Amino acid sequence: MANKRPLILVTNDDGITAPGIRTLIEVMNTLGDVCVVAPDSPQSAMGHAITINDTLYCDAVEMLKDQSHSEYSCSGTPVDCVKLAVNEILKRKPDLCVSGVNHGSNSSINVIYSGTMSAAVEAGTLGIPSIGFSLLDYSLQANFEPSKKYIKSIAMQCLKNGLPKGVVLNVNIPKLSAKDIKGIKVCRQANAHWEENFDKRTNPLGRDYYWLTGEFVNEDKGEDTDEWALKNGFVSVVPVQFDLTAHHAIKDINSWDLK
Amino acid sequence: MANKRPLILVTNDDGITAPGIRTLIEVMNTLGDVCVVAPDSPQSAMGHAITINDTLYCDAVEMLKDQSHSEYSCSGTPVDCVKLAVNEILKRKPDLCVSGVNHGSNSSINVIYSGTMSAAVEAGTLGIPSIGFSLLDYSLQANFEPSKKYIKSIAMQCLKNGLPKGVVLNVNIPKLSAKDIKGIKVCRQANAHWEENFDKRTNPLGRDYYWLTGEFVNEDKGEDTDEWALKNGFVSVVPVQFDLTAHHAIKDINSWDLK
Repeated sequence: MANKRPLILVTNDDGITAPGIRTLIEVMNTLGDVCVVAPDSPQSAMGHAITINDTLYCDAVEMLKDQSHSEYSCSGTPVDCVKLAVNEILKRKPDLCVSGVNHGSNSSINVIYSGTMSAAVEAGTLGIPSIGFSLLDYSLQANFEPSKKYIKSIAMQCLKNGLPKGVVLNVNIPKLSAKDIKGIKVCRQANAHWEENFDKRTNPLGRDYYWLTGEFVNEDKGEDTDEWALKNGFVSVVPVQFDLTAHHAIKDINSWDLK
Repeated sequence: MANKRPLILVTNDDGITAPGIRTLIEVMNTLGDVCVVAPDSPQSAMGHAITINDTLYCDAVEMLKDQSHSEYSCSGTPVDCVKLAVNEILKRKPDLCVSGVNHGSNSSINVIYSGTMSAAVEAGTLGIPSIGFSLLDYSLQANFEPSKKYIKSIAMQCLKNGLPKGVVLNVNIPKLSAKDIKGIKVCRQANAHWEENFDKRTNPLGRDYYWLTGEFVNEDKGEDTDEWALKNGFVSVVPVQFDLTAHHAIKDINSWDLK
């Protein structure tokens, strides 16, 4: 009888040594055959960057003693990892790609900066059902325990139902104890943005430099957004698309005097 | 009387020394007061990457003798350039942000990898009307002359009409002589993807590495796409949004057994 266990590709943007990816691997090992291809160093906020003008190294590694799944450490970005995994490492197209668990939020506008979500989107462009998971806790000591139940439930449903063509999932999990998480809400991306505040400093050689800091500003009062769900104790699930066309704006622009 | 010339921010992803940005600066100087803040080195395919764990340098430079506009060279990504420009360099919010002219296509799915478009999107999130321009010619010797007329026309219309909230423009220009360009078409993003083909090599120390290559595959037969427009001699204009929510999929996912 053929092996019917699903093949699951695991990646992230915090790097192969981050605690978040260990949680994801642990849960996915209960659902299928796991292959990990993840960056060898932190790649947060890399967005959909790919390596086109440089070499890519990708080596099999054994992170745990007697691990039953395979792991590869890659010198590239999260998107590079997905491309390499699908084209060079895996023997067949995976049934699911999961990315994370990210240390920190990828809700609302953060989706466009997120290496975690870009890896999921890349797998989506290749026709692979795909989910990015994030926990709203930047700490390396974050407690991923309460997340496991939701990660498993959402991944199982995705394996069972598939996803609409051109859609991947952006899942964010509040930093709450298991008993305080109220459930799962399917949401839209809140309309929010970052207001930057650069910290200007002088280096030891006397040259000025900047350090990016900023404040997240959510002007969206809707109760159907990911921000609302997370603030109110729910796990948020946003279906994300990579057809970026603003179809509603085509008519507007067509009324311009373009020649 | 107050100065009524619009303030125009110019950036790109090929770096401040690329020929494409010189074309864009030249055209924008005919429309308003120009400030250039661009990467100090090529940043192609950087997507929406930002620099969060490192320093950012940004220095005034004089690229041309007696230049009338200001220019800054920045050590960061295209998105960093926009954030720095708006928050630290410009005295007021610009009336327009233009990015490019990119050397090479950013049509279809390329929009998600593109540093050029990510810079435009970033300005869009800050409420600035914004356009990314690309010429379908990777060569540093590309002929940008035929592009100028279209860049000017689209930028003028954008300054005059503004853009719908949450929308920026992705403009691609075919590699054709002026007489062979048939006009401008407002389009949707073609449904296409990249099929990768990694070139596996061995370095002088005996370690294997990969080099990313690939083939662009367009399975979209529509005649309302950017790919169709470009293949048929038109400049393509795609309105692009950064609300990535797949609104049509929310109902689907809500039917899942999530708990």
